[in-house]
Amino acid sequence: MSIVAVGSIAFDSIGTPSGRAESILGGSCTYFSLAASYFTDVRIVAVVGEDFTTEHEDVFRKRGIDTQGIEHAKGKTFRWGGQYLENLNEAKTDFTELNVFENFQPRIPKQYMDSKFLFLGNIHPTLQAAVRQEMNGVRLTGGDTMNFWINGSRRELLETLKVINVLLINDTEAKMLAAERNLPRAAQKVLAMGPEALVVKHGEYGATIFFREGAFGIGRHPFRAPALPIEEVKDPTGAGDSFAGGFMGYLASQEELNREVLKRALFYGGVMGSFAVERFGTGRLQQLTREEIDSRFQVFRELTHLE
Amino acid sequence: MSIVAVGSIAFDSIGTPSGRAESILGGSCTYFSLAASYFTDVRIVAVVGEDFTTEHEDVFRKRGIDTQGIEHAKGKTFRWGGQYLENLNEAKTDFTELNVFENFQPRIPKQYMDSKFLFLGNIHPTLQAAVRQEMNGVRLTGGDTMNFWINGSRRELLETLKVINVLLINDTEAKMLAAERNLPRAAQKVLAMGPEALVVKHGEYGATIFFREGAFGIGRHPFRAPALPIEEVKDPTGAGDSFAGGFMGYLASQEELNREVLKRALFYGGVMGSFAVERFGTGRLQQLTREEIDSRFQVFRELTHLE
Repeated sequence: MSIVAVGSIAFDSIGTPSGRAESILGGSCTYFSLAASYFTDVRIVAVVGEDFTTEHEDVFRKRGIDTQGIEHAKGKTFRWGGQYLENLNEAKTDFTELNVFENFQPRIPKQYMDSKFLFLGNIHPTLQAAVRQEMNGVRLTGGDTMNFWINGSRRELLETLKVINVLLINDTEAKMLAAERNLPRAAQKVLAMGPEALVVKHGEYGATIFFREGAFGIGRHPFRAPALPIEEVKDPTGAGDSFAGGFMGYLASQEELNREVLKRALFYGGVMGSFAVERFGTGRLQQLTREEIDSRFQVFRELTHLE
Repeated sequence: MSIVAVGSIAFDSIGTPSGRAESILGGSCTYFSLAASYFTDVRIVAVVGEDFTTEHEDVFRKRGIDTQGIEHAKGKTFRWGGQYLENLNEAKTDFTELNVFENFQPRIPKQYMDSKFLFLGNIHPTLQAAVRQEMNGVRLTGGDTMNFWINGSRRELLETLKVINVLLINDTEAKMLAAERNLPRAAQKVLAMGPEALVVKHGEYGATIFFREGAFGIGRHPFRAPALPIEEVKDPTGAGDSFAGGFMGYLASQEELNREVLKRALFYGGVMGSFAVERFGTGRLQQLTREEIDSRFQVFRELTHLE
């Protein structure tokens, strides 16, 4: 089943210990949609400026991604510049130019309205809620957020969390949102805010999914997927969004949404994140095959599988 | 088969968000031997002072641990005081009084010499090497070390690493030892120094074992064991030593040492670490049953197991 993804398209200027890249295609919606496109039909909602060319749009089209929801606005596309120094888990931002993204008002094309899956990328929680309300026929909504909204727009975010089924954030964000330093306790608090499941991304250590009691099956036990120990991380940008794309894309491709499916989705999230960091920008995500993906899924499985 | 463990016995004064405990039995050898005692016969080599009573020794005896190798010296036992504040992964040391531990010269009782497994706790690398040389009939030697020796006694440590089969350290130590920030690359460098396998402990994210090519079987693929998300960590002291005890104890209980056995050992390490933190000091490790351990092993297994 198709999935609608709302988020950012950006041009990134990135420095890592492996090199530099200037003004390459990026943004949460870009990584998410490319990763998800290997599992299901993806339809995106984003805004770009006049510097976004047909060539850029072809990156999406070649992966069969529906770009009708890309709004072309006057001005420049969102630009971000950052560097990963010693610690590849954390970027130092050089600059952020919101440009056309500053006044982004997501508009859902009519043709998208029959989608049963929705992913709300990291935008203002009020915009997330508005999209969710408009698409009130969806079966499952995934969402992302960040410290900026957790601290600055908490009240709005708490409203939005009531209509998000699966929230995907990192350790720091989960602890900040719950105001609780212990992760499993933080997870229980976040689940009490609305989501039926919480995916906490641990970067190079994988991810954990926590379930609200009774959601997607029986029990309250969490589940952990590993991350692949990668010898050469070229560029960590977009790893989290690619994780979300693999996770949500796999879910949207399944008939039933039970715990076993969500566990497998967690592994597929890790798989897509591991591909994303192998090259600068979206280089690797543009050229995968489903065979490569499933073969790496087996590697992930063996990474923690006991006979 | 029995295992000889060399390391420290200490009295710890610990503060955590859950409370305080003064002068309780601790030390690397204590946590290690208690954890290992649920899997195999354990014989310890350590030094204590005049403040170490029969009551303290009974903690070991009750678990069937051979205490003939405990040297009773004039003076006070090693004392450590520390606090875990917000971050339960890292202790802030209040004081360290080495006392009798300062001049510790491990002496292996003759009766211990037929042991086929050896664990060299975190002591000066030259002392570790001397013990290993004396016990030259062992089948497998595990070892620990720390930043203090990595930076301060590097040459001696590199010599010792040549005779250690499995090194168990944490992320920071592995990266420091290899002078390399990327973990899998750091692991390859450490394995080139001598060990056939390297266990890297990630605290609340579990552990990874890296194998030298051809060691314990075929392939170079690492393996990851998760850690249990624990809602109430009372006292993290000794978690790493308990991990090592579970890991080495399980190995010593097995006939064959192949990759599958080392993988299971990694899970048992995590299991024992997870018990250790549930109460202050060694409280939980003194009173476990093998049934409780195996039942938690199943929980760990399910934590990452896909159907």
